[in-house]
Amino acid sequence: MAIENFTAYNPVRLHFGEGVTGGLGKSAAKYGKKVLLVFGKGSVKKYGYYDRVVEQLKMAGLEIVEYSGIKPNPVIEDVRMATGLGQRENIEVIVALGGGSVIDSAKIIALAIASGYDGWDIIKHKVKPEKTIPLICVLTLAATGTEMNAGAVVQNHDTGEKIGFVHELNFPKESFLDPSFTVTVPKNHTTYGITDLIAHALEVYFGEGEPPVIDQITFDIIKDAMRWGPELLDNPENVELRANIMLDATLALNGLTRYGKKNGDWGVHAIGHELSLLYDMPHGASLSIVYMAWLKLHKDRISERIKKLGKNLFGADSVEGTLDAIRLFFQSINSPVTLQDEGIGEDQKEIIIRQLNKNSASGMHHALTDDDRRKIVALMYSH
Amino acid sequence: MAIENFTAYNPVRLHFGEGVTGGLGKSAAKYGKKVLLVFGKGSVKKYGYYDRVVEQLKMAGLEIVEYSGIKPNPVIEDVRMATGLGQRENIEVIVALGGGSVIDSAKIIALAIASGYDGWDIIKHKVKPEKTIPLICVLTLAATGTEMNAGAVVQNHDTGEKIGFVHELNFPKESFLDPSFTVTVPKNHTTYGITDLIAHALEVYFGEGEPPVIDQITFDIIKDAMRWGPELLDNPENVELRANIMLDATLALNGLTRYGKKNGDWGVHAIGHELSLLYDMPHGASLSIVYMAWLKLHKDRISERIKKLGKNLFGADSVEGTLDAIRLFFQSINSPVTLQDEGIGEDQKEIIIRQLNKNSASGMHHALTDDDRRKIVALMYSH
Repeated sequence: MAIENFTAYNPVRLHFGEGVTGGLGKSAAKYGKKVLLVFGKGSVKKYGYYDRVVEQLKMAGLEIVEYSGIKPNPVIEDVRMATGLGQRENIEVIVALGGGSVIDSAKIIALAIASGYDGWDIIKHKVKPEKTIPLICVLTLAATGTEMNAGAVVQNHDTGEKIGFVHELNFPKESFLDPSFTVTVPKNHTTYGITDLIAHALEVYFGEGEPPVIDQITFDIIKDAMRWGPELLDNPENVELRANIMLDATLALNGLTRYGKKNGDWGVHAIGHELSLLYDMPHGASLSIVYMAWLKLHKDRISERIKKLGKNLFGADSVEGTLDAIRLFFQSINSPVTLQDEGIGEDQKEIIIRQLNKNSASGMHHALTDDDRRKIVALMYSH
Repeated sequence: MAIENFTAYNPVRLHFGEGVTGGLGKSAAKYGKKVLLVFGKGSVKKYGYYDRVVEQLKMAGLEIVEYSGIKPNPVIEDVRMATGLGQRENIEVIVALGGGSVIDSAKIIALAIASGYDGWDIIKHKVKPEKTIPLICVLTLAATGTEMNAGAVVQNHDTGEKIGFVHELNFPKESFLDPSFTVTVPKNHTTYGITDLIAHALEVYFGEGEPPVIDQITFDIIKDAMRWGPELLDNPENVELRANIMLDATLALNGLTRYGKKNGDWGVHAIGHELSLLYDMPHGASLSIVYMAWLKLHKDRISERIKKLGKNLFGADSVEGTLDAIRLFFQSINSPVTLQDEGIGEDQKEIIIRQLNKNSASGMHHALTDDDRRKIVALMYSH
């Protein structure tokens, strides 16, 4: 069957559009009186998003406890500290104000507070949480799709791991997506967000199953991002362009593209995570580098899928033409396509290979061998 | 803004694929021990679907009360009788086995049982139900999308009305979509299902808001139905083709195509419902007739939207070319495009106009005047 058996489930209530955070206080108040407000390192204060959220929560009569300082590649230490704070303060609801790193951290914080388990034990499946704290998200970066899915990715430098944890309890109760909250995202992170959402669509496309209508929907999400992304980079304060990319990012990983599929592949993310761990590389930047190498490695193994992609995205009629067009697109938005683009020299080659092998970085549909990993690292150094 | 503010919310758990009903008993048992099994007029018994569902429920230790005989254009009398039965028997969960008419009826039955209100009072918004009975659907017809949405349409011949009722409590808890349960759908109803799903996509497309990526996704759904639909009619027992159409029908009205829109239009449905009321016309059959007339009426008012549709669906470069291509498609699958095609003569013209005016049949985005209704009825008689 082209359409594989699947289950669709996504209970997130998503509010999208300029001004939607006007409903934040009322929403949060449904779930409790004491809020843990989680955010990052200050840009939300600088640009006034923090003030708008706090005003909303206070107007609704909520008491706020704050945990700030979540890092762009979020670490388990912050999850643990925020969990301790939330438990001491008996918080009842979490409001995450930020992008993927803040929201992903908040998902694990919520599980850890409610279950009493350690966040890393949860991520490593050593314990099974059975409840969580209601989570409300206010998104400030269009990229990961976490605002409408059940995934969370966190780093642990002690164990040298960056891994994802998917669980139905991770679904936010509600998410507020106001595209005007993203107009201040710097150019490079706007680029990485576009790359990230395209990579998500590709990861699922290259998973098992070829549902015709879902393939087309996946192409249209990518095409929309490729159409508006470059224009947005030239007009970063254009709210309408921000809205297009924000909607694309949510659609790329809210489960829709997985209808009719057994799984996604996620081999590129597995490798990208290792690069982020080693070099604190922005997630999106790692993905464009790894995708070019992954496609080169797989070009003869899955040539029909690559050709179908290229034909629909670019009107390309060959695998090579498709790879060229993808590379040119990434380059056009200044997303790196080789490790050299990120200043990582050949001397790092063996270190990277060792790291990939240590964590057995691989895909769910297209498994990678040690030999594949060695090849893929070499390919990350060549155009 | 091309993307209008919107809220997305759809908590239905959808199980899709051959064999998924193997999980029905376990799912139903989560919600209660006593089941009201609602179905239609016998085809589910004839083809064995009834036996498979009952076996599942019994294996899970559930007690079953049955209400059968729901009509293809469902009537409020059945809703009332099933409500009475469910209340007398203290049922805890409803399993709806059938197509749109059975599931829509079950949604109102569930509200009426839980709230104690009359089903028609609920539909007419005379009372506000605040709770419902959990509903599980086993779909046997790909068409209305009700298996994954919050709508329900029921007829009342006493008041001469067929109206829809949308409420979050209407969402089924879980829906089981096994395409092999639809291989016995007769050719004409397979056609009407295809027409229905395309009409749903069009109704939302012609609503307020022009979100670029959602427009494309809407085209993808229609194109998929137009691609596989005719092939399915030639190979009605092909489960893979059934799966494509089944997925299209769900996607066409599960809320996805409304992302970034203020509303759908639904003027064609409003008129189609009146034809079903007057002539017991199958819902899908009414829609292809009305759509051709509606498009002709609106062709100068919304020419850009029609042209965008035609260009993307058919590569057409004009409004007229688009209308021709849509008509040809409907004719190719034997969906009627004039009232004559359904054996309704010119002598009925004034009766239909009177009925449309009585209920003020209109759209949410494109309002219809008395004069429009007169014109649209005339257009339903002409190619």
